[in-house]
Amino acid sequence: MSTASPSSSDPSHWPPPFLLYLGNAADDLAAKTARGLVQFRPEWCVGQFRGPDCRTSVHIPDMGFAEARAAGANTMIVGVANAGGRMGPDSIADIVAALDAGMNVASGLHERLVSHPAIVEAAQRNGRHLFDARTPPPTPVGNGIKRAGRRLLTVGTDCSTGKMYTTLAIETEMRARGLAADFRATGQTGIFVAGRGIPIDAVVADFISGGIEWLSPDRHDGGWDLIEGQGSLFHPSYAGVSLGLLHGAQPDALVLCHEPGRPHMRGLRHYPLPDLAATLEANLEAARLTSPGVVAVGLALNTSKLDADGAARACREAEDLLGLPAQDPMRDGVARIVDRLLDAVPC
Amino acid sequence: MSTASPSSSDPSHWPPPFLLYLGNAADDLAAKTARGLVQFRPEWCVGQFRGPDCRTSVHIPDMGFAEARAAGANTMIVGVANAGGRMGPDSIADIVAALDAGMNVASGLHERLVSHPAIVEAAQRNGRHLFDARTPPPTPVGNGIKRAGRRLLTVGTDCSTGKMYTTLAIETEMRARGLAADFRATGQTGIFVAGRGIPIDAVVADFISGGIEWLSPDRHDGGWDLIEGQGSLFHPSYAGVSLGLLHGAQPDALVLCHEPGRPHMRGLRHYPLPDLAATLEANLEAARLTSPGVVAVGLALNTSKLDADGAARACREAEDLLGLPAQDPMRDGVARIVDRLLDAVPC
Repeated sequence: MSTASPSSSDPSHWPPPFLLYLGNAADDLAAKTARGLVQFRPEWCVGQFRGPDCRTSVHIPDMGFAEARAAGANTMIVGVANAGGRMGPDSIADIVAALDAGMNVASGLHERLVSHPAIVEAAQRNGRHLFDARTPPPTPVGNGIKRAGRRLLTVGTDCSTGKMYTTLAIETEMRARGLAADFRATGQTGIFVAGRGIPIDAVVADFISGGIEWLSPDRHDGGWDLIEGQGSLFHPSYAGVSLGLLHGAQPDALVLCHEPGRPHMRGLRHYPLPDLAATLEANLEAARLTSPGVVAVGLALNTSKLDADGAARACREAEDLLGLPAQDPMRDGVARIVDRLLDAVPC
Repeated sequence: MSTASPSSSDPSHWPPPFLLYLGNAADDLAAKTARGLVQFRPEWCVGQFRGPDCRTSVHIPDMGFAEARAAGANTMIVGVANAGGRMGPDSIADIVAALDAGMNVASGLHERLVSHPAIVEAAQRNGRHLFDARTPPPTPVGNGIKRAGRRLLTVGTDCSTGKMYTTLAIETEMRARGLAADFRATGQTGIFVAGRGIPIDAVVADFISGGIEWLSPDRHDGGWDLIEGQGSLFHPSYAGVSLGLLHGAQPDALVLCHEPGRPHMRGLRHYPLPDLAATLEANLEAARLTSPGVVAVGLALNTSKLDADGAARACREAEDLLGLPAQDPMRDGVARIVDRLLDAVPC
């Protein structure tokens, strides 16, 4: 038994392949970390573990812990995001079982793996590592000084509207055109996909913009930093994070992400969604504080609940309303948004 | 020697009287915690300790640690606020010396007293307590649900414009009129003055609005919660805190605090101050998300750098510009602002 701390942020200590832990996820949105990994790193995902009350799936083989280890899984990723990010006793027992089966465990929850002695002991007993992706690195307070390089930020009408997906899709499209462009992760899923980043909703409040300045420093190669947005200026729970992120990003360009037809703000039945034009204008106005020349270059619509006709209509309507290219990155890619970006902010 | 943790948030463990530690404070604003205590709790403040490079004073007797203890000081308050709130080696040595002299130590810095083994050991050795006022209590995520009771929030064009002072002055004025009104502290100085509160700039970013909902819950006695604002929507370092605070506060009324003539945003020479009308409108617009009926009821000007004529002129100009009563709380009190409050939002 080792007595060294089992906690590590070194990516070599939580290597793929991964078992994706869904636990008793209540709905599809709760499993978005697992879904993001399956989407962007399918080659790393050997299976999913679902509890008896799990109401979602990421459509890879169901596996127990020993079975996953035997199939090659080196690390279990715990990404089920409840409001407040709490682990229940069932989750703790499952994590201990995964460590006992020989896997490392990486978690994207606010609540830290290392805060549970049973988990720390199990990691030490098995010589495995723990990674709390939401434990932020130390960063300075923001200073708002203009940085070299170009930056795009995704913003949204709400949480969970596709900001990470859109940002990664823009990276793929720009790289396919031979441009230097790098996804900058601000959430746990993005950090698992990119191997680095800052969990911006977990930093101490005074350091939100400073954390983003740290994530996306001066850049001199003529390329783009593509910064993953979080939350919404119109979400009563999380708008502070979104504003600090917007100021720290100093974006040259914004892409607004939205899910047409969503009935209310995520988690808040008493709050309707803001309208697209108001959301875009509020984001541009706030962004001008640190980036006076900021422009909007597109709308990314998550039309996963619509049929093909409905999706096309939603994009057309948004496009007519705001005069910007509107695409569903999953159905249509983001080529027209990138076209507009390169027109509006030439390299 | 006790091995129990010396850390405690129980106010009975850091009782007055206080020695106020100014250390090597670089300017008057850096000493605002000490100044706030001298202003609002003069009977608790027996002396100040200043280091060799200290460039400010709160105009109470200078004392060494043993001398302060002999004069009755039970607790040393460490409130020097550098950007990022770091303690240097000099400060650590001074804190150890204060503990060795027999005082408890309470700190309002981000960096925790308990993170320094030398400080913890000195507290244990002397049977004294440590209180880190910026260690927030656990609070839920905000939900934006309308709460019972009435709330006033102070907002500002910048940091350090007099929001705490103004809020406390409004409490004093309302109580003098026989109204139920309670100051709700959101910063270290306010917490030292009020004995409770939440250090909102130190909470994890996802919990900013939730922290304020916790601080100011349903209230059914017809009285007012007077919530201390922080920062500014226009400060590139801290605006996220200000927006989450605004949403969590659900204010019925806003008072805008401003220092006329300030040359640039606090700590950021490259950022000019926003204008009063734009600041007020941005705050009202953002506040409407959780409190649609919010109104502005006054302007509190910090005219400490102006003479009497200049102060009167600044108030008159602001009043003409915005059609709201403008007063310097320190020179003039806040009676006209409270008159407007009671007209605009009747009890």
